[in-house]
Amino acid sequence: MEGLNWLTARQAAQGIRDGVFSSEDVVKACLAQIEAREPEVQAWAHLDPEHALTQAREADKRRSEGKPTGPLHGVPVGIKDIIDTLDMPTEDGTVLHSGRRPWQDAKIVDALRAAGAIILGKTVTTEMATYAPGKTRNPHNPEHTPGGSSSGSAAAVAAGMVPLAVGTQTNGSVIRPAAYCGVFGFKPTRGTVSCRGILAQSELLDQPGCFARTVEDLALLGETLSTYDEHQKGMRPRSTLPLLRVCEEEPPLPPTLSLVRTPWWDELDADAREGFSELIDHLSDRIGEFEMPDSSVQVLEWHKTIMEADIAASYESDYERGKERMSKSLREQIERGRAVSVVDYRRAAARIEPITESLDEVFDRFDAIITPSAQGPAPHGLDSTGSPQFCTLWTFCGMPAINLPLLTTGNGLPVGVQLVGRVGDDARLLRTARWLLTTLA
Amino acid sequence: MEGLNWLTARQAAQGIRDGVFSSEDVVKACLAQIEAREPEVQAWAHLDPEHALTQAREADKRRSEGKPTGPLHGVPVGIKDIIDTLDMPTEDGTVLHSGRRPWQDAKIVDALRAAGAIILGKTVTTEMATYAPGKTRNPHNPEHTPGGSSSGSAAAVAAGMVPLAVGTQTNGSVIRPAAYCGVFGFKPTRGTVSCRGILAQSELLDQPGCFARTVEDLALLGETLSTYDEHQKGMRPRSTLPLLRVCEEEPPLPPTLSLVRTPWWDELDADAREGFSELIDHLSDRIGEFEMPDSSVQVLEWHKTIMEADIAASYESDYERGKERMSKSLREQIERGRAVSVVDYRRAAARIEPITESLDEVFDRFDAIITPSAQGPAPHGLDSTGSPQFCTLWTFCGMPAINLPLLTTGNGLPVGVQLVGRVGDDARLLRTARWLLTTLA
Repeated sequence: MEGLNWLTARQAAQGIRDGVFSSEDVVKACLAQIEAREPEVQAWAHLDPEHALTQAREADKRRSEGKPTGPLHGVPVGIKDIIDTLDMPTEDGTVLHSGRRPWQDAKIVDALRAAGAIILGKTVTTEMATYAPGKTRNPHNPEHTPGGSSSGSAAAVAAGMVPLAVGTQTNGSVIRPAAYCGVFGFKPTRGTVSCRGILAQSELLDQPGCFARTVEDLALLGETLSTYDEHQKGMRPRSTLPLLRVCEEEPPLPPTLSLVRTPWWDELDADAREGFSELIDHLSDRIGEFEMPDSSVQVLEWHKTIMEADIAASYESDYERGKERMSKSLREQIERGRAVSVVDYRRAAARIEPITESLDEVFDRFDAIITPSAQGPAPHGLDSTGSPQFCTLWTFCGMPAINLPLLTTGNGLPVGVQLVGRVGDDARLLRTARWLLTTLA
Repeated sequence: MEGLNWLTARQAAQGIRDGVFSSEDVVKACLAQIEAREPEVQAWAHLDPEHALTQAREADKRRSEGKPTGPLHGVPVGIKDIIDTLDMPTEDGTVLHSGRRPWQDAKIVDALRAAGAIILGKTVTTEMATYAPGKTRNPHNPEHTPGGSSSGSAAAVAAGMVPLAVGTQTNGSVIRPAAYCGVFGFKPTRGTVSCRGILAQSELLDQPGCFARTVEDLALLGETLSTYDEHQKGMRPRSTLPLLRVCEEEPPLPPTLSLVRTPWWDELDADAREGFSELIDHLSDRIGEFEMPDSSVQVLEWHKTIMEADIAASYESDYERGKERMSKSLREQIERGRAVSVVDYRRAAARIEPITESLDEVFDRFDAIITPSAQGPAPHGLDSTGSPQFCTLWTFCGMPAINLPLLTTGNGLPVGVQLVGRVGDDARLLRTARWLLTTLA
């Protein structure tokens, strides 16, 4: 049963459902791969192999008893260590929360368990999901950052340790590590996924997301996470989103993509620029250009105002009791954030809607925006997780975004291509991504 | 057809429905009363008698054609002049908005029209619903304030100019003017009534409310205003609340009331204290006491932090372009509010839930809290609208509150008794209020 750890989530679920192999087989293969790669990659904050196997055996027993099973029955998933789990510690990447044991699962962990998933373990996050790196290294080259803040989730999926992982993005924390590690990443529309039981950084900006090795797996995981949560502020009663079904459909017309040269285009590195340009040339008959509104250049500043003020408010008690055990970068973020007035905050937040609306017209003409996921491949060194700049605008607007690991540099590092969709149109974005992969195949 | 202006809303609706008199008759009676009393009371910011009569004639025509009619068919209502009306100016009590014509009705005005109501005119508000008084005087004694900020709505109902009026409360702006003017006032649970199309002062604290001359009329108006609004943040799909039906029911057991001596009890004036004590003695077998949590004394400060920061953010563009045409008090509020940090704001806002929860246990033992509506009767003079202090805690917590005009001072000024209910339990609160009136009758 070798290689089961490299199956996609759908293949794993299908094989378990059909009795070709068991959940225990899959989990054992994942644990073996972790044993082999973890010393180098360091993707896990918490892993209890026995507890994982116990869950898998229970899933197998359930199936053997003919009880109903969910779409992820027996499939292991990695969970970013800022997302609460009842049966495992959740330490938020900070010594301030060492040994923290939540008293209940986050809503999305609950949804995963209801779908039959095995919660394999907790993946490494940067310090409280901000900038100071955790221990994780890039599986393609351990001298390079995996990106952050969902470092372990991206690296674990890339290293074949688990087919699926969950992370969060407040700036570029899903799309960037997915790009650096060369896996598929998906940040759904803001508000689509419950944040309950997840370390709150910014109520306005926090957006949970998915890591996988295929677009279809992103859709499957995304639709599981989209379970309605009556306690999530602003979420209205609705059924689970049909992301996988739509993702697999043929588009009614061949999609068109809009190349959006964001104002920070010049910061794209040479290698990435070349690869991206070749891709655009190759797709030229399906591509048009769209000029960004001038005001979008200010988004970085507005985003920073909101995020730093929210971090200062959200992490206030941690700062009060343990600022000396925080990294300098987090301390400085909090200290800048403490100075932000309500008036300045609201002025920044009031830009979200008009900027989003000004981008909306792209989608009257195009199915998706195509743009780089990051400035280039994963930077050398482990002191930083790289810049989230190429993700900020889409996070600010809450638009759905996908990283496709389409490019590679000369020295074998992945470079991500980002597709961005209209707010609420996640299913169509996934369908467009699948079409693009088929076109390029 | 004299005296039709003094009918309750339900009597007026019934008479119109039965053809005893027409909507035009009722509106004419109201206009005649306005003509008689308006020079002294000054309750109206905008009144176009012809337009009111046109609406009434259309209502009468509709009825005569046998078309469906709503529960307020033909009944005139006054609307506070911070609530948008498509067919009348909405000037927000400030010269900065002189001549402002909204391009659509506020959601609650829309709901009133759908129920058949006649929008009689716009009632006077203080400056942008804050502290600087408008022109209105107390109908019981023109040398006394009517209270604010919903000054005109309270005074118009008290003076028999209209059976119903709508106002808003961010601190004490419904209950206090109702108490000073001697009418029934009702501030529903926060979030029950849509704020769309109403001058936004504080998203957290703004709470629309009702003025009438009976509790049943409050229930009828409140249930009309509770219409679901899909665009109102945080409102979940639900049917209209059955306030009137429950209000008219007999309580399953004789209700009990909890006397809550708020920390600012000592500020109650002698006259009001005496009347209130007599009432409590009279009801002694139905009354128990409840000790306020110590922290509640800080509510005034938390409320101020939130309100002033919100005002500074909400009125920012008005301040920038016209601060010299604002009152000193509003300017100072805004200037204090501009200095409030997001961290301080969130710390204050985070107290709402625990304070509300600590009060919740009152309602396991009692049907309602009984407490004064204000420090006493309407203060002498027109330079201030009096203190909202006796309303702040309940507004902060978003609890439903009713003013009952049960007491009178020696010189004929009304003194209000406030009943406060559990969050979401508005119907029960109205039922308890009706029971109390019956008991005292």
